[in-house]
Amino acid sequence: MTGFFLDNIAAMAGYVPGEQPRGTGVLKLNANENPYPPSPKVLRAVRQAANQSLRLYPEPASDRLRAVASRVYGLSADHIIAGNGSDELLTMLMRCFVGPRDRVAYPMPTYSLYDILVDIQGGVRAPVAYGPDFSIPASLAKQRAVLTFLCNPNAPSGTLVRPADIARLARAVKGILVVDEAYIDFAATANASCIPLVRRLPNLVVLRTFSKSFSLAGLRIGLAFASTGIVAGMMKVKDSYNLNRLSAVGATAALEDLPWMRRNVRRIQRSRQALAAALTKMDFEVYESETNFLLARRPGTDVRAVQQALKKRKILIRYFDVAGLDDCLRITIGTPAEMKALVTELRRIF
Amino acid sequence: MTGFFLDNIAAMAGYVPGEQPRGTGVLKLNANENPYPPSPKVLRAVRQAANQSLRLYPEPASDRLRAVASRVYGLSADHIIAGNGSDELLTMLMRCFVGPRDRVAYPMPTYSLYDILVDIQGGVRAPVAYGPDFSIPASLAKQRAVLTFLCNPNAPSGTLVRPADIARLARAVKGILVVDEAYIDFAATANASCIPLVRRLPNLVVLRTFSKSFSLAGLRIGLAFASTGIVAGMMKVKDSYNLNRLSAVGATAALEDLPWMRRNVRRIQRSRQALAAALTKMDFEVYESETNFLLARRPGTDVRAVQQALKKRKILIRYFDVAGLDDCLRITIGTPAEMKALVTELRRIF
Repeated sequence: MTGFFLDNIAAMAGYVPGEQPRGTGVLKLNANENPYPPSPKVLRAVRQAANQSLRLYPEPASDRLRAVASRVYGLSADHIIAGNGSDELLTMLMRCFVGPRDRVAYPMPTYSLYDILVDIQGGVRAPVAYGPDFSIPASLAKQRAVLTFLCNPNAPSGTLVRPADIARLARAVKGILVVDEAYIDFAATANASCIPLVRRLPNLVVLRTFSKSFSLAGLRIGLAFASTGIVAGMMKVKDSYNLNRLSAVGATAALEDLPWMRRNVRRIQRSRQALAAALTKMDFEVYESETNFLLARRPGTDVRAVQQALKKRKILIRYFDVAGLDDCLRITIGTPAEMKALVTELRRIF
Repeated sequence: MTGFFLDNIAAMAGYVPGEQPRGTGVLKLNANENPYPPSPKVLRAVRQAANQSLRLYPEPASDRLRAVASRVYGLSADHIIAGNGSDELLTMLMRCFVGPRDRVAYPMPTYSLYDILVDIQGGVRAPVAYGPDFSIPASLAKQRAVLTFLCNPNAPSGTLVRPADIARLARAVKGILVVDEAYIDFAATANASCIPLVRRLPNLVVLRTFSKSFSLAGLRIGLAFASTGIVAGMMKVKDSYNLNRLSAVGATAALEDLPWMRRNVRRIQRSRQALAAALTKMDFEVYESETNFLLARRPGTDVRAVQQALKKRKILIRYFDVAGLDDCLRITIGTPAEMKALVTELRRIF
């Protein structure tokens, strides 16, 4: 490493993404990808847009996508900003609100990227432990944080907290509250989203991604919903042309075919229920999941050995080397056939 | 605006990108886009990749693209990092090297985005005026800057400085030197690139974009070349999956069809020469351009009025409300037919 880097960058480690194997025949249940393909209408729209207009810059603020998102989510376009994945939106939020040594709070365990984002920005991590029921910890609002993250439903627990509780949290925190709704389309609970709260809570930001329910992780598309003032400030920080032409077209087409997404969500919800039942029979304690994955605890089990044994049989899942989760597996919900293959292998192990 | 933003973000204005008109029939000579389409091989590869694999995340570090870039540019892949446009690479560089109140130097006039990037990061702008010949100003190395930008060939002047001079600058500056080679494929001068210097100058970063010579502004692809230490540090700061699947495939295919790009470059070079001659006849002083645009000065001319008059006739070009450039027009080089249309309209004005 060179001596030119800022101290916080030199000192930190990078984020390690879930394994992306190159070979075929691998069953990927490790990155919470959707087992079903994106809508054929999305693929058709993207292929049609792969024409000579690629020589031109995209729309700087993805206006067409935001117009469609406005109709779908019921907020005017000036409440909406598009990102190169919700990852980029998280980065914009850090750059807008977090200065050196500013505190950033989030309940733990949660999406491990938040730690890294704080390190990059030279901020101070202020994690607060979740209780066993994964409700919002009472001390979360008391962290004197300029930014508070709440992944809802949470990863890797899969659990959901209600908008009414989140509204209370938003009013109690000192700074900005970011609710990361990456998985919310998979929730069984109705009216779980905080997007409707955006109009009356000036410090609330809600994030969505197209990587999970819309089966478009490969296109990198996220949306943020917030007050017009927050959106206007984020626009100043984003790269001039942050969303490429094809991703913008694909995201627009995806929002215009919600039935496709919803059908896949229902299929995943059914597989989730079936897998939870099968795991319970194998002595796992399965957290109530409102996502496209399950967190399953099996006290006393060497989960790393289980993960390795499955990997040898070309099935990838995740475990976490984290206090409180060291006897848990996290399994992405696949198709019924994929879940059957997984359960068969797990039965060989247990 | 809300009171939550960092002071530097609240105080700054955002970057204003070149106009992107929606209607057809507009001749866009304002954003230095390539008038020729991308390679048919690129379009074919992108269309083929628009399949159900879009449900999966892309490669985190764009390994396949970097492997091909390694062969094309003669540096191993650990000297290369890919970005969502060179804009994202500029952002990564700022986040790696520039802390609050750190100085960032660049000769002026140049790419106006550098100003904005410094503001976002809370750094201090340290611009140094170019002399009339647009050679490297002697005082540029003396700015005590953690980061120095050199756009080469420069925008909007179109002028080029030589690698030997840049190597001297790299050795003289205190921090990192970033050479932004967005336009270098259009240079008439041979061996103009600084990429070969990367191996022996540990503080040198060279940027390339696919938006200009490769006709892929719509896909957002950039590459940075630097020492392995700098690349490793930038990897920590980049978003986990910063390049989407289709852009990575398109960029790879573009590098595998260099003859297509080079043929378009030659055509643009010829049109550049023809336009320079035509403008000279209309009493413009035309800067020697090694890019896909011309900067043309016409002392005493109201260039804003010229720009407006052309806009009424559906031709977009740029002028700059900047000291030293207030009698200059910047015109992107189009096809011969487009240049003829422009010259016809200009002759009506003068």
